Amino acid sequence: MSTGCVIGVDLGGSKLLAGAVDPALNVHHRATRPAREANQSAVLDAVVGVVTEVRDAIEGASGTVEAVGFGIPCLIDQARGVAVMAVNLPIAGIPFADLMAERLGLPAFVDNDANAAMLAEWRYGAAQGARDAAMLTLGTGIGGGLVVGGVLQRGSQGAGAELGHMVVHADGPQCQGNCPNRGCLEAMCSGTALAREAVKIARGRPDSGLGRALAGGREINGPLVTELAYDGDAAAIAAISLIGRWLGVGIANLVNMLNPDVVIVGGGVIAAGELLLEPARAEVAERALSPSKEHVRILPARFGAESGMLGAAALALDGIGTPV
Amino acid sequence: MSTGCVIGVDLGGSKLLAGAVDPALNVHHRATRPAREANQSAVLDAVVGVVTEVRDAIEGASGTVEAVGFGIPCLIDQARGVAVMAVNLPIAGIPFADLMAERLGLPAFVDNDANAAMLAEWRYGAAQGARDAAMLTLGTGIGGGLVVGGVLQRGSQGAGAELGHMVVHADGPQCQGNCPNRGCLEAMCSGTALAREAVKIARGRPDSGLGRALAGGREINGPLVTELAYDGDAAAIAAISLIGRWLGVGIANLVNMLNPDVVIVGGGVIAAGELLLEPARAEVAERALSPSKEHVRILPARFGAESGMLGAAALALDGIGTPV
Repeated sequence: MSTGCVIGVDLGGSKLLAGAVDPALNVHHRATRPAREANQSAVLDAVVGVVTEVRDAIEGASGTVEAVGFGIPCLIDQARGVAVMAVNLPIAGIPFADLMAERLGLPAFVDNDANAAMLAEWRYGAAQGARDAAMLTLGTGIGGGLVVGGVLQRGSQGAGAELGHMVVHADGPQCQGNCPNRGCLEAMCSGTALAREAVKIARGRPDSGLGRALAGGREINGPLVTELAYDGDAAAIAAISLIGRWLGVGIANLVNMLNPDVVIVGGGVIAAGELLLEPARAEVAERALSPSKEHVRILPARFGAESGMLGAAALALDGIGTPV
Repeated sequence: MSTGCVIGVDLGGSKLLAGAVDPALNVHHRATRPAREANQSAVLDAVVGVVTEVRDAIEGASGTVEAVGFGIPCLIDQARGVAVMAVNLPIAGIPFADLMAERLGLPAFVDNDANAAMLAEWRYGAAQGARDAAMLTLGTGIGGGLVVGGVLQRGSQGAGAELGHMVVHADGPQCQGNCPNRGCLEAMCSGTALAREAVKIARGRPDSGLGRALAGGREINGPLVTELAYDGDAAAIAAISLIGRWLGVGIANLVNMLNPDVVIVGGGVIAAGELLLEPARAEVAERALSPSKEHVRILPARFGAESGMLGAAALALDGIGTPV
């Protein structure tokens, strides 16, 4: 049952997720690690560790692992196979796939994490059958993936689809990590931005659930805000709605620029579901042009926060000639 | 020599340009008309008039006209052949190509005006050989064209590449015409925006050449500002530089999103040349990500304000099976 698996690894800005995936796209074992490592060798050790954990579990059950695929939050120069620039992780400048193949003794394949997520959603998920599609993955940062004219597009150097670094608010806050920009989508509606805006709202509304959480010393992060919002806390709902509005500005841009069939929203923040997407759709309705805005569907990722991991597995299956 | 011409027509927001073009892309006769007509039938009459003028000139010299191509500032539903939505002209809802074929008695082909400009620059001009390219045409409005993965892309319905309606300043000024949006690139750095910003600057600097032109009752428009800037007037240079900076924000977005080989700037406003492009490049250097920003070339349209007309002619040549 678990023979002939590959391992898909989604290396996020704050979390590593690995899964053993068979050619029918069933996931047999998952493992996670925090990825908030300060230096490159610690990040790489964590990656090797999480792959080894999954591999041991599969091989312990008499299965085999054939290859490994990585989605990494990096601009990748595909011609040179090098992770050129990473906004949120210290992994720039390394030949990631070659290095992992050597350390793991397995064929290794790599793509940008959000390109991998787009691939999974396009082949098997919410964007299936689309000729033109875009994906935004909202986590620590914001990743992007594009299908244009029926092809997964990575740009002339393979560094493309950095949709999270589209400016929507030119005088907005400084973006994070290694991004030199201000008012990018990532600065306005990533999980990081959600936490920042939720703290501001909590300070102004001390009697709300969000306000009490802040006063009680809890870390205000995306999962907590989402939990409070689902419990009906108006302050938490307001924070998610604000983020959703900014997300909608970005989606309106994609709709006007690319006239896509579908825009998929994934990453950890999509746990907020319609609390996030409903205000985003309202913003698109206000800003985008006809007929594109009536045509586009704005949907949550079918695979939730696992699109990237499954897409990375699909890369590995493609790489060894066993596409599902 | 002028046998077997086609006529290319660029229908801008304020000007019609038609040219008789042979299969070697030589232009044999040009004609222009203002396009600021308030109603649909007057616009269509002007189009028929300008085509007829060019056709008469060619046929008077014993040449023949085989077909006509139109670039129109419209979102086009290619499946239905209908001009669905026009931001700056009253031509929405009509089957433009069919209607013109009937009135002119010639095979007629239509595309978005900026898609046509992109086609001309990609095949014959500044984007020749690019795998990934974008074009912005700065006139009354801003049009956009995209080559992604070696294909001219129009989106799922053919309504795509409305790059001028990408929001870069969410709280910015209301866009014009039928665009419901605020702070689009068109609202920030079209020819219309250049005139608006130049008037503001002129009021604050009455002793400048620009200030004296305003006080003297001259209409402050793109060509005048450009002329004054080339004469060294600091106020006019400041107006073009401001527009160039906003253009740079939009180009930075294209660079991050699409990792293009080249971004071409055309339309009437590109008459300002490096006065416009130099501040745009500076903004891209500040905002875009590596390696994409080092890779991209940001160039003026080789055919200046004639890219759209030549691209429309190319559509007609393609349409009758005589590509150059």
